[in-house]
Amino acid sequence: MTTPLRWVPVAETRRVLDAIDDPVTRTRAFSALTRINILYMVARAGSGHLGSSMSAADVVSWLLLHELRRPGAHDGDLYFSSKGHDAPGLYAALIGLGLLDEDLVHRLRRIDGLPGHPDVHTPHMPFNTGSLGMGIAKAKGVILADRLLGTRRRVFVLTGDGELQEGQNWESLAGAAHRGMGELTVVVDHNKLQSDTWVTEVSDLGDLAAKFAAFGWAVLRCDGNDVAAFRAACRDRAESYPDRPAVIVADTVKGAGCATFAATSMAPGQWRYLFHSGAPAPADRERAYAELVATAQEIVGAAGLTPLRLADAAPAPGPAPGGGPRLPEVYGEALVARAGRDPRIVALDADLVLDTGLIPFSRAYPDRFVECGIAEQDMVSMAGGLAYRGLLPFVHSFSCFLHARPNEQIFNNATEGRKVVYVGSLAGLLPAAPGHSHQAVRDVSAVGAIPDLVVLEPADAAETRAAVDFCVDTPHSVYLRLVSVPVPEPVAGLPAGPLELGRGRVVRPGGPVVAVGAGPVVLAELLRAADLLAADGIDLTVVALPWLNRVDHGWLGDLVERADHLVVVENHFVRGGQADLLARALAELRLPDPPAFRGVGVTEVPRCGTPAEALLAHGLHADRLAEVVRAEVGGKSEPGRFDVVLRH
Amino acid sequence: MTTPLRWVPVAETRRVLDAIDDPVTRTRAFSALTRINILYMVARAGSGHLGSSMSAADVVSWLLLHELRRPGAHDGDLYFSSKGHDAPGLYAALIGLGLLDEDLVHRLRRIDGLPGHPDVHTPHMPFNTGSLGMGIAKAKGVILADRLLGTRRRVFVLTGDGELQEGQNWESLAGAAHRGMGELTVVVDHNKLQSDTWVTEVSDLGDLAAKFAAFGWAVLRCDGNDVAAFRAACRDRAESYPDRPAVIVADTVKGAGCATFAATSMAPGQWRYLFHSGAPAPADRERAYAELVATAQEIVGAAGLTPLRLADAAPAPGPAPGGGPRLPEVYGEALVARAGRDPRIVALDADLVLDTGLIPFSRAYPDRFVECGIAEQDMVSMAGGLAYRGLLPFVHSFSCFLHARPNEQIFNNATEGRKVVYVGSLAGLLPAAPGHSHQAVRDVSAVGAIPDLVVLEPADAAETRAAVDFCVDTPHSVYLRLVSVPVPEPVAGLPAGPLELGRGRVVRPGGPVVAVGAGPVVLAELLRAADLLAADGIDLTVVALPWLNRVDHGWLGDLVERADHLVVVENHFVRGGQADLLARALAELRLPDPPAFRGVGVTEVPRCGTPAEALLAHGLHADRLAEVVRAEVGGKSEPGRFDVVLRH
Repeated sequence: MTTPLRWVPVAETRRVLDAIDDPVTRTRAFSALTRINILYMVARAGSGHLGSSMSAADVVSWLLLHELRRPGAHDGDLYFSSKGHDAPGLYAALIGLGLLDEDLVHRLRRIDGLPGHPDVHTPHMPFNTGSLGMGIAKAKGVILADRLLGTRRRVFVLTGDGELQEGQNWESLAGAAHRGMGELTVVVDHNKLQSDTWVTEVSDLGDLAAKFAAFGWAVLRCDGNDVAAFRAACRDRAESYPDRPAVIVADTVKGAGCATFAATSMAPGQWRYLFHSGAPAPADRERAYAELVATAQEIVGAAGLTPLRLADAAPAPGPAPGGGPRLPEVYGEALVARAGRDPRIVALDADLVLDTGLIPFSRAYPDRFVECGIAEQDMVSMAGGLAYRGLLPFVHSFSCFLHARPNEQIFNNATEGRKVVYVGSLAGLLPAAPGHSHQAVRDVSAVGAIPDLVVLEPADAAETRAAVDFCVDTPHSVYLRLVSVPVPEPVAGLPAGPLELGRGRVVRPGGPVVAVGAGPVVLAELLRAADLLAADGIDLTVVALPWLNRVDHGWLGDLVERADHLVVVENHFVRGGQADLLARALAELRLPDPPAFRGVGVTEVPRCGTPAEALLAHGLHADRLAEVVRAEVGGKSEPGRFDVVLRH
Repeated sequence: MTTPLRWVPVAETRRVLDAIDDPVTRTRAFSALTRINILYMVARAGSGHLGSSMSAADVVSWLLLHELRRPGAHDGDLYFSSKGHDAPGLYAALIGLGLLDEDLVHRLRRIDGLPGHPDVHTPHMPFNTGSLGMGIAKAKGVILADRLLGTRRRVFVLTGDGELQEGQNWESLAGAAHRGMGELTVVVDHNKLQSDTWVTEVSDLGDLAAKFAAFGWAVLRCDGNDVAAFRAACRDRAESYPDRPAVIVADTVKGAGCATFAATSMAPGQWRYLFHSGAPAPADRERAYAELVATAQEIVGAAGLTPLRLADAAPAPGPAPGGGPRLPEVYGEALVARAGRDPRIVALDADLVLDTGLIPFSRAYPDRFVECGIAEQDMVSMAGGLAYRGLLPFVHSFSCFLHARPNEQIFNNATEGRKVVYVGSLAGLLPAAPGHSHQAVRDVSAVGAIPDLVVLEPADAAETRAAVDFCVDTPHSVYLRLVSVPVPEPVAGLPAGPLELGRGRVVRPGGPVVAVGAGPVVLAELLRAADLLAADGIDLTVVALPWLNRVDHGWLGDLVERADHLVVVENHFVRGGQADLLARALAELRLPDPPAFRGVGVTEVPRCGTPAEALLAHGLHADRLAEVVRAEVGGKSEPGRFDVVLRH
């Protein structure tokens, strides 16, 4: 990619805003400029949610420019996005208004920059969103607090339409009506597409207006990419329903603002929308850029301004080339193969068919593929019903959601003694670009004590294929934890080993300093650390133990028999995972001469950034692990930290 | 209570059923007999859900007697209760039909008897219900499986009306409509009362029919205590909507069937319904019994039968007298006191105002009391909104629900770095009568790794009062784990001690065998075990450590400096709690001469029963703990078991 990326400096935005009086035209101009910066930010970051940032841009622009009273003031009107995926759009707008540092335009999804989803450490982000369905409830809390504190302000919450599949939204509606929350306006960015495809294909919302009305809400509807129409809807909302919560169903186009990204450009019958969360390919980026700039130039020209002057910037260095396979893809192929021999296997998905590797399964066995939509609790309890009838359900989502949202439903299935396999992809610290709502480093602790549930994290393609067989053949339920970043080279090249419950294998023979870990990220960093340590004369033994809540006491006893040090490294919070498991097992084993123990894991809420930034920040980078081992061997280590905190 | 309890033998029920031809009359007779046995079972058990068992009795009787095709057969129509609270009613009906052993009529809420909520180990219970909102999804799973397997059967699910406040219900509706599930019928036992009081007071359901219709469901409505009307609704459902999921909103009376329990007998303005879950007082029981028998005699007499012959049974031994206070009550009073000095404190409740000790708070500070209904996710995210505005929310439910249903929402609040206090009552194995859906022995593991969240379990009244102060004064968020059974005598009599984060106190000085635990149940059993062991010459040191995911390394080092054995006992699963915490801390401390370690906790899904039955079954009874210590001291112990399974 040789063409430089271009972006709109704040001064240019200011020049345009200052020169246009008509609120509607001014808003159209602002959102046109914002969209250029959305493209810039996402292209530079290498990922980010283009489609919904674009669909919501006109709504967000109107709200920030003309609707909110004293936004940012302590008692000013409040706006936030519940879905949070559209963060690049909100950031771009806030930067354009001078409410965020201009320099941050270059730092989307970088450490100490702008996280992939909203975080309260960024100015003007009242809440951490990105995990869906919590926004309406948060807004209700603000309003209850305001009432207690004697403040009166309005709260606007943007939701997605796919997001409305989450049950929490509907839990929240009744209370707002019950309490007559005229302060609360929900805007549905009704762009008709969710992560994978059309909402109607996934789980039809039916008559959205009738649903909100049945829950006691006032309902308005307008074209959400028509600023004048949205303005009129806001006015109608305020005048007609001062004492009731209201929803404005804003009909929008995903990727609105340029032909390249607009869902209206999708070919007839095209199933998948291509610009949900990744960066566009260079050709798409170039074409979209030209379209966006042409639109912006047309609007500012019609307003009598001189042409826009955009700034150049070099693209950020791309991600390191990932040589190895992605485990969810390997998993998906292995599941298809196994399902061919086992008609009991049914796959359930929560709107992440691409990211969980299920596209081949959905094509091979459409009758045995159940798309549940963004409704993880429903999905997990449905799996309980399938298991009751003797089928073998495999339940899929990102691990960040799967371990937590349906946590009680997983426990309930477990108490019925029926087997269900839970497959959480995007597990662990990496990728760190989406931010902590998507970084699953608490999953093992949250499901590790569920009865008869084995937590398993394979490290490479061969182990992933073996894991699928294990999941089918074992009498236990399984939580399969899949890292989604490509398997790093040192791990991808390992020879295949057996997969036996509770037992690991030495992947790098060495001396009496033994390091144990699971999964591709930890093992790659440990193997790299071993290379660093070899230069210091320390011959690190590296052990892959893919079991996160089960260990074979005999195997462990043999492993540590001649070990002086045991270092357990986790792609997980330092509490409730493999380090606790092995420390407990060692204690119960009561060896006459146990090795010195050290656990290393994530101790803070995960940071957003590049893989290297996140690994360094959280102490899991090979350089850091080598330092830990050197301190151990040198007798200079302190008791390990194993409290989990927000930030040290 | 000297009057013997009376119940209806199966032979009597069979005599009545055989003698009546008209289906409606036959059903009315059957439900009249069922109701007598519901009263018997609940009175004998000492607790149980009378009100909803009675309200649903006519619906259940019609379904089982005349609506279901081949119930119990592998491809027969399926009925189950999603709310599960009405289990006594379903049990009584199944016993009357000879589908459960007659002898079980005497064993409600006893070990190896009939659990307080349905469990699949009881015949004809397809699912474990009792935690609300999962039933519709489970039914959908059955129907999907049937379709794959080529079976066609109908599935009937009973839900409560309060239960519909749970978001998972609404998550489930869309998919059933999307897939045209004509096999699925939901019956809402619309008795208008939830756990504490009127549904309209808690969180008004609004236009229930319009809600279901908006989600694409067919809606029928009838008097659910009028058998003929319910029969007509079932017929209409089948004939008019063969290819759509349908709901029958059955308007019922909580406690229907006798004047004493019927909600229609509540005094004007009476706030609380008194027969939701406890056993009735003797006078109420006597009166209700007379009313129920009179109704039944009238029906069978009108059918030309000779009078009913009921059987006598002695009441079961009542629960052991609980001398000490109940911690939720102590907590509630302390919260009122502290809230008087701190206007930031707001209390949120999820329909358990009585059981969480909040009635005094709700009266003292009605403006700062937020009744959220059975909507835990909404409640927790609302707390996040309150905290954003600088208030200090205390969030309440039973611990079994609070740690799991809103697990992701608690994590989300934590990542915002704002302080919220979560208070889970009914924590731990006891009371064991409600069954495993209500026995919270996984809560510490499920929330223990949430950043900046401290898990605290006070043992007695003084420590509970100190805990409230800690919750207010600490910068951390807190998960306060409250045991609800009365504080046993040995603990209630302990002198008060300080409450310092991560540090415990010796409550029984002794020798080098040290036992550590938290909370009234564990400490009482340990103190009793110490008495038993003293007779063997073993002088057990007992230590109260109320912190479940934090320990002060210095304190721990001092504690074990002269200890030979450290035994950690948990009112929790053996995984992910205090034993893991202390084993890990000991390992990281690297003491030159660490004590032999042993963890004791719950290793199986909790059993339903009396307190003594459950403590014995799970190895937490003083007798069992004394055995463990003897084996330790005698050098005969094996490595501890710390996998959690369904049942060994």
